[in-house]
Amino acid sequence: MAFDDMTTALSPTGDDAPLIPVLAVVGVGLIGGSFAAALRAAGVAGRILGVGRDAVTIQRACDLGLIDQGASLEDALEQADMIMLAAPVGAIAWLLERMAPMLRPETVVTDAGSTKSDIVQAARRSLGNKLSQFVPGHPVAGAEQTGPRAARPDLYVNRNVVLTPLAETSRQALNQVTRAWQACGARVLTMDASTHDTVLASVSHVPHFLSSVFMWQVAMAQDADLRLSLAGSGFRDFTRIAAGSPEVWRDIFMSNRTAVLAELAEVRRALEHAEQALCDGDEQALEDFLERAALARRLWASRSGLE
Amino acid sequence: MAFDDMTTALSPTGDDAPLIPVLAVVGVGLIGGSFAAALRAAGVAGRILGVGRDAVTIQRACDLGLIDQGASLEDALEQADMIMLAAPVGAIAWLLERMAPMLRPETVVTDAGSTKSDIVQAARRSLGNKLSQFVPGHPVAGAEQTGPRAARPDLYVNRNVVLTPLAETSRQALNQVTRAWQACGARVLTMDASTHDTVLASVSHVPHFLSSVFMWQVAMAQDADLRLSLAGSGFRDFTRIAAGSPEVWRDIFMSNRTAVLAELAEVRRALEHAEQALCDGDEQALEDFLERAALARRLWASRSGLE
Repeated sequence: MAFDDMTTALSPTGDDAPLIPVLAVVGVGLIGGSFAAALRAAGVAGRILGVGRDAVTIQRACDLGLIDQGASLEDALEQADMIMLAAPVGAIAWLLERMAPMLRPETVVTDAGSTKSDIVQAARRSLGNKLSQFVPGHPVAGAEQTGPRAARPDLYVNRNVVLTPLAETSRQALNQVTRAWQACGARVLTMDASTHDTVLASVSHVPHFLSSVFMWQVAMAQDADLRLSLAGSGFRDFTRIAAGSPEVWRDIFMSNRTAVLAELAEVRRALEHAEQALCDGDEQALEDFLERAALARRLWASRSGLE
Repeated sequence: MAFDDMTTALSPTGDDAPLIPVLAVVGVGLIGGSFAAALRAAGVAGRILGVGRDAVTIQRACDLGLIDQGASLEDALEQADMIMLAAPVGAIAWLLERMAPMLRPETVVTDAGSTKSDIVQAARRSLGNKLSQFVPGHPVAGAEQTGPRAARPDLYVNRNVVLTPLAETSRQALNQVTRAWQACGARVLTMDASTHDTVLASVSHVPHFLSSVFMWQVAMAQDADLRLSLAGSGFRDFTRIAAGSPEVWRDIFMSNRTAVLAELAEVRRALEHAEQALCDGDEQALEDFLERAALARRLWASRSGLE
């Protein structure tokens, strides 16, 4: 597709119209609210509809200026040029199924779910010949806070967004979603859903699992109070992610179960290796492994710009 | 011991003299340098001697005003009223052995090593009838930075310092070290060395071990570059401690090997439990464990004031 086609696709009503005349965001918490706020700040979204079960949240998102008005899913399907599903992973399959019969052929659908193979499968089951309109996505960004109050237009600046288009996904839909995320300041990467899920299992889901297991183990100890009274800044950093939403993370683990279990098995092998070195009193092996880890972490920090 | 005795013990030359007329700090990096800086700022240390193998570090500590002058271990033993051993765990046993023959009966010796049973054993081996002068200690504070440049007088404000006195430790020595740490703004706790080592294995050493194992496993993966390019803020927090000094942590793990291996076995049991729930697709068990972990972490954060 040439550049002209892309421009046309994104400005169907002429040069002065915003790229997305009507945007609907299903789930106006941190992720969906920040997407809305970023697109509005960039001037690429016209009217923004917010869809959600909780009227208080929708009202708050209106008051904060994240969305223009609340809407039902039916209204959104009727009016929106792009629909962003920023719901928990477990709810996206259900949403796709409900949306399928009413989805107009011009509407582009994307999502922000943390796992992709499950969602791709759900889309295949539900969308039929409308599959070309769906662009699965995952913004690799987050914060401890949740809800519309935590939303901010710069959440995605310089953050990675992974899109995992299907063979059936139209280039026009992919381009539109790509440009929306770029307008949010994000770096857009494209890969297949299974690669995404393996990589995220490794660098996001497994750390959360380990941090939660560790926090649970400490809290269940008979002398938990004493332990916790002596926990310092290393403990603080290591366990920060364990405070995340139990429901959200249960869904993520269930949805990416195969990849998470495979990665956990790898981590466990590495753990056994390191434990054996300690058990044997093998100082050299112990230092080698600590040094490789420290160098890799320092290199990552200097390259990623994250700390 | 009555309060008057304590005052006398700490002000041997009269009310106007500082509590510690001559302080010697062996190892003037972050921990020792901050101890010196805090005591100087509180006005409780008179002259401060710095002992160390590296002349450049000693000179830097002088230039930064952390110490008044460099000194040999022999000079320190001759002049100091209190000697703080702020060396890596592996070096403290060696220092105690070298110091024992020259240690004057008035001098109080303490340390800042991260493990205590090993150091207590070393003290028993080396100090003989001078054991009463030794107060094993561990300030539970640190930072990613190391070296004298990272030292600061407020490092210990509101942080925990654990003292693990022996049955032989004199009350006078214990009181003097307690008051020195309190002058740094620290909360002082007293417990036996083995309790300290179990608790620290749990909340400090095991997290470091797991974080390093995880970082190592990711860095060794064939697609490590892709993984690391998608690592976000959760990964950043979870792996921050893995960047710590390999030598320092090798020494800590070796020194506290028994307790660390015991705690790792407990964590592994908890991990197997959680993995089984995921493997079984037991959503309720998974959510229960995640919820207990999240609640415990949130409660800890609100109580500890650490974030």
